[in-house]
Amino acid sequence: MTGRSRLDLYQVRCVRIGTGIIAQCAQDCADSGASRVLVVTSAPIAGLADGLCEALRGLSIEPHIWLGPDGEPTRKDVSDAIATAVTISADFVIGIGGGSALDVAKLVTALAGSPQTFDEVVGIDQLAGRRLPLACIPTTAGTGSEVTPISVIEDEEAQLKKGVVSRHLVPDFAYLDASLTVSKPRKVTASTGIDALTHCIEAYANKYSHPVVDNWALEGIRLIAANLEKACNEPGNLAAREAMLLASHLGGMCLGPVNTAAVHALAYPLGGEFHVPHGVANSLLLPHVLRFNAETVPQRYATIAHALGCPATGDDQADAQAGIAEIERMSAAVGIDRRLSDVGISSNALPGMAAAAITVQRLLKNNPREVTEQDALRIYEAAL
Amino acid sequence: MTGRSRLDLYQVRCVRIGTGIIAQCAQDCADSGASRVLVVTSAPIAGLADGLCEALRGLSIEPHIWLGPDGEPTRKDVSDAIATAVTISADFVIGIGGGSALDVAKLVTALAGSPQTFDEVVGIDQLAGRRLPLACIPTTAGTGSEVTPISVIEDEEAQLKKGVVSRHLVPDFAYLDASLTVSKPRKVTASTGIDALTHCIEAYANKYSHPVVDNWALEGIRLIAANLEKACNEPGNLAAREAMLLASHLGGMCLGPVNTAAVHALAYPLGGEFHVPHGVANSLLLPHVLRFNAETVPQRYATIAHALGCPATGDDQADAQAGIAEIERMSAAVGIDRRLSDVGISSNALPGMAAAAITVQRLLKNNPREVTEQDALRIYEAAL
Repeated sequence: MTGRSRLDLYQVRCVRIGTGIIAQCAQDCADSGASRVLVVTSAPIAGLADGLCEALRGLSIEPHIWLGPDGEPTRKDVSDAIATAVTISADFVIGIGGGSALDVAKLVTALAGSPQTFDEVVGIDQLAGRRLPLACIPTTAGTGSEVTPISVIEDEEAQLKKGVVSRHLVPDFAYLDASLTVSKPRKVTASTGIDALTHCIEAYANKYSHPVVDNWALEGIRLIAANLEKACNEPGNLAAREAMLLASHLGGMCLGPVNTAAVHALAYPLGGEFHVPHGVANSLLLPHVLRFNAETVPQRYATIAHALGCPATGDDQADAQAGIAEIERMSAAVGIDRRLSDVGISSNALPGMAAAAITVQRLLKNNPREVTEQDALRIYEAAL
Repeated sequence: MTGRSRLDLYQVRCVRIGTGIIAQCAQDCADSGASRVLVVTSAPIAGLADGLCEALRGLSIEPHIWLGPDGEPTRKDVSDAIATAVTISADFVIGIGGGSALDVAKLVTALAGSPQTFDEVVGIDQLAGRRLPLACIPTTAGTGSEVTPISVIEDEEAQLKKGVVSRHLVPDFAYLDASLTVSKPRKVTASTGIDALTHCIEAYANKYSHPVVDNWALEGIRLIAANLEKACNEPGNLAAREAMLLASHLGGMCLGPVNTAAVHALAYPLGGEFHVPHGVANSLLLPHVLRFNAETVPQRYATIAHALGCPATGDDQADAQAGIAEIERMSAAVGIDRRLSDVGISSNALPGMAAAAITVQRLLKNNPREVTEQDALRIYEAAL
């Protein structure tokens, strides 16, 4: 770790935590002076917004629901949602759903009525400002999108995922309401939970780590170690569900100031070419990248292992390896895919994936150990 | 602990951390569209704002400096600062100083040009909203005022401290710049540091504690245990100074959602009647209140002791007592007053102080053990 001294935190102004707290969102809209609210969500979870829409109407605020796709949103989806916001003259936007719905909602508040186009704001700090107030309500515990300055959208023509990163995308309100996550299938709870774990681990073992962010990352790891299996095995366990939402939120808080590293970079081609869900892609690669990295910074990975609940033996290398084994055990226990071949990737695809991954220097530069194309290929081979 | 499930966090939108980071404040003013900035500070530290004022002028923003008192601010000070903001048509306010300067700056942004008067907003959630954007720059590591929803002002006529508590007082920008704290006298570094420690301890061992806040409190305690003596003994040690600013900030983050308890309640009469500085008053009472509380919730105080660096022996009561002894050792090591008699309080004053303290139910209700007037008197006697 080189570490760093300067840190800039762009925070959500109001975060509300608690079972049933979604009910407060309508009042927050009213207090913000809203009269026409665009609710960005997707068909399978739209029912979770029913009570909120009713509460909005009770306060004389008209909700308009925009239904996005179940999977990753495209540029066309974003254009369509923006057009809807303009048509109804929305003066407030609520995103409710997984990372996809929230990422669309964030871009709507930035681009509705703006002279800037999507193409102009792709990349880092290209966004001129925000046009509308924004509340985000996650229904999965994974991306932490309700707290990040990031939206990721699939450019369907270029067959590429494109990221918009800007402080102006950080929401005004976030609601962590465990009751909204209890209906999630076990598979989604598991893979999104490992995604949150990956955010925390990659922010802690990061070339640009910072003590403030370290504390969030380690707390997120502790919460996931103590609650992921419980949340999977007892879907109605609200305490475990809330702990996972907090961990996801903490992982999201790490993304703005520090961000991720090689696991996310190597996961990119799995999403882009093979349409493997983001959380699954990360969980497939996590132990293999960690083994690669642990040699270089065993002390950081030993601390991660201790946060996972592994005892401190005084031997950092041994502790780091025990931590990686614990992650593999936990992943197996919650039943997520373990190998690239489980998701239909064969060995002849690996060289192309390695060539694609190595272009993601924006994240690879954060990795505590340098990753060459040859290294990426070896990691994919180990994960096959 | 009864604990609680619902938590509402009102956060500073932008927090910047790093030595020299104050330089960024002028650009943030410019980006916010400011043209006339009121800089609220006090004579002994006004020099720390010189570079900032020059940077503002370089961006065609006119700074106007308002100098407050060196000690605790009064209602008259607040009125005067508000009048100045109105006269110069300020469109941005910067507070730079200890808790006193920041508390005045916060009220100026709430009341300048407002139909509400100070008397109307005293208490909890009485403030209708905020009128001006606000940046806070602490020059002491103690109150954490740059992140709290609280302003405390002396009502000179009533001879009482009056608090305004409102989410609208939480600043838009905060800058944690260790270089601004290096010129503080050892005595101030010591007592404000113990004040921050008190915020963390009283939020952690609190009837309304919450896991999210627990994590901030324990991290604050760890940072203070590792850095308070260093910051006192090596005034120019920027790493220790920054760690203390972070701890103070974390302590401040605990105040909005959870707040303090009996130490602060019993410290009130020391400030109001005897004009003992807030940090000193807290540090005089801290070990004695902790001894009183530890009987009831030894497990919480054992965890505090471990965060202070005391080993875990498996005996919570013993660990809790070891933690209290460590706080006394640390207080003695940094040379702050130890006894009420050191600050000129004699035994015949104690019954009146106990009667006054018991009226502060707003904080006493948070205490993990019920405090009667008789208990308060015994605690004062122990501290004499």
